[in-house]
Amino acid sequence: MSEAKTKQAYSAAMLVIGNEILSGRTQDLNVAYAGVKLAEHGIFLSEVRVVPDIEDAIVGGVNALRGAYDYVFTSGGIGPTHDDITADSVAAAFGVSMVTNDVIYKLLLDYHGGEEKMTPPRKKMAQIPEGARLVENPVAGPPGFAVENVYVMAGVPKIMQGMLDVIIATLPRGLAMLSCTIECALYESQIALGLGELQDQYPDVDMGSYPKYGEQGPCVHIVLRSIDKARLKSAKGDVAAMVQVLQKA
Amino acid sequence: MSEAKTKQAYSAAMLVIGNEILSGRTQDLNVAYAGVKLAEHGIFLSEVRVVPDIEDAIVGGVNALRGAYDYVFTSGGIGPTHDDITADSVAAAFGVSMVTNDVIYKLLLDYHGGEEKMTPPRKKMAQIPEGARLVENPVAGPPGFAVENVYVMAGVPKIMQGMLDVIIATLPRGLAMLSCTIECALYESQIALGLGELQDQYPDVDMGSYPKYGEQGPCVHIVLRSIDKARLKSAKGDVAAMVQVLQKA
Repeated sequence: MSEAKTKQAYSAAMLVIGNEILSGRTQDLNVAYAGVKLAEHGIFLSEVRVVPDIEDAIVGGVNALRGAYDYVFTSGGIGPTHDDITADSVAAAFGVSMVTNDVIYKLLLDYHGGEEKMTPPRKKMAQIPEGARLVENPVAGPPGFAVENVYVMAGVPKIMQGMLDVIIATLPRGLAMLSCTIECALYESQIALGLGELQDQYPDVDMGSYPKYGEQGPCVHIVLRSIDKARLKSAKGDVAAMVQVLQKA
Repeated sequence: MSEAKTKQAYSAAMLVIGNEILSGRTQDLNVAYAGVKLAEHGIFLSEVRVVPDIEDAIVGGVNALRGAYDYVFTSGGIGPTHDDITADSVAAAFGVSMVTNDVIYKLLLDYHGGEEKMTPPRKKMAQIPEGARLVENPVAGPPGFAVENVYVMAGVPKIMQGMLDVIIATLPRGLAMLSCTIECALYESQIALGLGELQDQYPDVDMGSYPKYGEQGPCVHIVLRSIDKARLKSAKGDVAAMVQVLQKA
């Protein structure tokens, strides 16, 4: 993938925050969604980290990733309970204070129906790092926010997906990653030499090979990805020709 | 989770290797499986990183994680094609050479039916880092391997799961993480104060709160996790009592 990157492509990392993902109680679905949606917009997900609800771990993740990639997207930990420490941790990562955001406060006030309903947990939800920009939440609950190149989203997939779509629409578009898949009834070890040679000929086309099991006989999916349509088409032709020769052999 | 850790508990990290996870083409299923299986054995998954098929990224991940946790488990990138660079990268991370393993070579020789069938890609699959220990593959294909505290497994979920089960059986057992879930028809902001107070009373019980959407009315799952059965039971009673009071209010 690195070879396929040009100046028109952007890089991103994702920081998934939550004990429930690490314990295996909850199956993460946000990474795959983000990977697909970002690539369509010319932003390539290049690293993911999953960390527990521990401030040091979140601060470490945010600071390691925000310097290394164009964008960082976090998911999880922005609710009102004690284990929701993402906003505080992002503030700590940037060395800024938490402040009450008037827009969020007003939203929560209207939603809950009066100042007397603004309990400390609800007031906590109106706090974001000083200088943060709001990220619209088109699904349910209060907005997310962004500090510099770090975008903080909810963990619930439906809400995270809505927020990510909103964020992506605000970001400059890179060249979208195009892809195609060639399926063949061969073992990986049969295609390995030829595919490696073709990869050398097409450094601007990322070639991946994925064996499938549990079906009748051997099966491999060869996935080609590139931001260059013509090169992708040419590579696809060459890989298909190689596969045809091998399948006849 | 950090609070719940004792000397009888072990820590682990997972390094998921593969462009197909980052592109969103493939939904990772290995992290959740590992999280559950490891916790049952008293080994707590504390961090996950997903990196592309790029040697520097894999070497960086292996070296960052193997010093920070008791065990590191990698998945993906151990096949015969050009994009399978996990074994070489692990060797590079440890500063050792790749050597042909006689046991794997013999397995592949018998499987493919003769020396003339041992093409370079198949010979490549018999190579592992110098000094590595073999990890049995009870499902399909050649074994995985381990170098010090780093265990290298296949990426295909069925094979990874078989290998992980074999590995776990060889590791010292910590105190298993026990858990229970309390479901309630409340908003998170309603339980936040009380749950936070109970968390303070039970630093040895990890309390997580997970809102559910798309159902009728509010719904939160409160998940309690501890290695101490008696404390978990006590905490469960206190959380259930709190919930009952709030639901009647």
